[in-house]
Amino acid sequence: MKILPLKGTCDYLPREVALRDYLQGTILSVYRAAGYERISTPAIEDIENIDKSEGGDNLNLIFKILKRGEKLEEALSDGSALCDMGLRYDLTLPLSRYYANNRQNLLTPAKCIQTDRVWRAERPQKGRLREFVQCDIDILGSASPTCEVDLIVTTAKALRAVGMEDFTVHINDRGLLTGLLAALGVPAEATDGVCITLDKLDKIGIDGVRRELGERLSDEGVIEKLCALMADGPVTLDAAAAYLADKAPAENLRWIMDTVAAVTDGGVPLVFDLTLIRGQGYYTGPVFEVRSREFRGAIAGGGRYDRLIGKFLGENVPAVGFSIGFERICAILRDRGFTPPTRRRRVALLYYPDQMVVAARAAEELRETCDVSLIEKTGKVGKLIGRIEAYGFDAFAEVTAEGITVKELGQ
Amino acid sequence: MKILPLKGTCDYLPREVALRDYLQGTILSVYRAAGYERISTPAIEDIENIDKSEGGDNLNLIFKILKRGEKLEEALSDGSALCDMGLRYDLTLPLSRYYANNRQNLLTPAKCIQTDRVWRAERPQKGRLREFVQCDIDILGSASPTCEVDLIVTTAKALRAVGMEDFTVHINDRGLLTGLLAALGVPAEATDGVCITLDKLDKIGIDGVRRELGERLSDEGVIEKLCALMADGPVTLDAAAAYLADKAPAENLRWIMDTVAAVTDGGVPLVFDLTLIRGQGYYTGPVFEVRSREFRGAIAGGGRYDRLIGKFLGENVPAVGFSIGFERICAILRDRGFTPPTRRRRVALLYYPDQMVVAARAAEELRETCDVSLIEKTGKVGKLIGRIEAYGFDAFAEVTAEGITVKELGQ
Repeated sequence: MKILPLKGTCDYLPREVALRDYLQGTILSVYRAAGYERISTPAIEDIENIDKSEGGDNLNLIFKILKRGEKLEEALSDGSALCDMGLRYDLTLPLSRYYANNRQNLLTPAKCIQTDRVWRAERPQKGRLREFVQCDIDILGSASPTCEVDLIVTTAKALRAVGMEDFTVHINDRGLLTGLLAALGVPAEATDGVCITLDKLDKIGIDGVRRELGERLSDEGVIEKLCALMADGPVTLDAAAAYLADKAPAENLRWIMDTVAAVTDGGVPLVFDLTLIRGQGYYTGPVFEVRSREFRGAIAGGGRYDRLIGKFLGENVPAVGFSIGFERICAILRDRGFTPPTRRRRVALLYYPDQMVVAARAAEELRETCDVSLIEKTGKVGKLIGRIEAYGFDAFAEVTAEGITVKELGQ
Repeated sequence: MKILPLKGTCDYLPREVALRDYLQGTILSVYRAAGYERISTPAIEDIENIDKSEGGDNLNLIFKILKRGEKLEEALSDGSALCDMGLRYDLTLPLSRYYANNRQNLLTPAKCIQTDRVWRAERPQKGRLREFVQCDIDILGSASPTCEVDLIVTTAKALRAVGMEDFTVHINDRGLLTGLLAALGVPAEATDGVCITLDKLDKIGIDGVRRELGERLSDEGVIEKLCALMADGPVTLDAAAAYLADKAPAENLRWIMDTVAAVTDGGVPLVFDLTLIRGQGYYTGPVFEVRSREFRGAIAGGGRYDRLIGKFLGENVPAVGFSIGFERICAILRDRGFTPPTRRRRVALLYYPDQMVVAARAAEELRETCDVSLIEKTGKVGKLIGRIEAYGFDAFAEVTAEGITVKELGQ
């Protein structure tokens, strides 16, 4: 049998889990203090729900679960779908279904926390996981831009709480971007593709963008207008707004940016970024992303998805969320050599089997203040103590004629 | 799209997650105090690992993940296996692989905690989940019966910590049982089937057992001997030992039972139970199960599996574990109407959008001591306050000309 975990999945050692638990706990306490509540959804979802979710490229990355028993036999003989379920690729789709199912038991707007695993069938490669954790907060049932402010301020606070300082929040609006593209002459049916290309500006440069636009658009004039807009360096919100007949999305973004700045005394660096798109097809308004100089790519991302819950309910419910890429935070802190503050003193209590009753009773008393591991003496005791010290115990104790003796380690 | 979670899976509301988090946290702190450390393994495993794991009936309940891309096309055209991965059905198989993969970075014996989800494709029915949480502790790398004592004492303490009082730990030994069956004339190849039948004594009664044994064994004399042994009420450890040429398993059980009693001053009710088998094929020695009058069936179970890690390493590594059926504990406490001790005061701070900056700054100060949810005033404010009170907030605050006023709720 194979001893390695599946490619793109991880075994976490005790000290890695301690770091992960500490980071997740810290993020959770910031979220909870801000009035968000933890909810939980299943890891598996109906495959139809996933297929219809407008998850963009992620829909190509679904782990699908084979039908079972008679239904599998039927599918194999009649050529119908082999799968009936899939592993969730994000926490937003299950949350939308959850809200549709449970809204009568939630306060509206609902402020939800999810910190949980998701799965994507990425091509295995270094740093790209197929199973990973996301830490999401969402506000469901309100169209007010106060939600965006609340999410941005709270997410920034959570990132600070885990030691992220050097980050910038990029913000854009889907409606603003599509309005601008229409004003520049991009046909409606080419909008999505053009957005994908513009989003690659920092990866492929303006020449790469021009080349790709050439494959998507026939009108050279439109391509040149797009490239002129992008080539001049970052487009300001005012410059973008100048193209728009409907100023509402730009004014909304301005209000969000100004309010975040006022609430935090400018403590959250926030930039308008016309090339920010985010891959998911379900976003409808403001989208945001946190970038850090310590990591290539985003460490958090989110946006407004006012039409996703409507796919379940038949009536639209506005919603917006912000997700921290937990694995990226872990990677940054691991690279820094960060170790979480120790929780309690760790003591190894060594004993011979015939001393177990005395040892176990003594351990139970010490557990008022310490974590105490009962460790049977086998082999050479000196070597055992060496292994215990190397493993990071703070002290070891032994059963002696005088009772329990405790000796410090690692001093 | 479908709004219900898949059959056999659950959406958990905030108050349910609060209960689950509290119970898991309480169990975890008992485990940690006893020197166990949390580790984490992937939810998905290589399908070959699962298929070869001797998981008993659970192997019929695997959620299998379809191959992707070219490999799926190949499989569909050449008839090879459609699946390459599966969702874990328990935490013991991944742990065994984990130990094989990571033992050089662990202390031996390793004391591991896993609290995590597992999946089984059970036929959907009330109270039988397809996705559920187990809380396991395991000791890997030691054959000493001190491990069984440590696990039993620690699991009993964890159960007490979450309010379970009225339980009994049943204990048996696979080797003792198979030795006894051999002594009574049961052929080796019929042993497993006979064990399964004997395990059903409390479900199908002695007549049911006799009937099923008739299908498994040809020798009426053997069947009568078995029924005579079982019919007389519980078989004592001494009575069982009398049949055995090799007394070691019985003496080992006796030592475990006596030591648990001595360590806990008889505080853990422990009974020898010859009919206790546990479904998993991988158990090799002592097996145990916790039963409570508050729940039909076991609330925890475990045993020794000295040959499972060997399937990965080629050399056997002794191991033993104890798993709390977390969902059953949750169900019992939910039925009791238990609510976890509240963590922090919860305040709703109500504001109009143009007051957001003042409100958000005030909220941030209150968050030193309270969880504060910023809630925008929409609709009738009286009704909003009613909903907030019904939802369980301890107080609400408002932005007024005099500053922030706080009023208690639910008094």
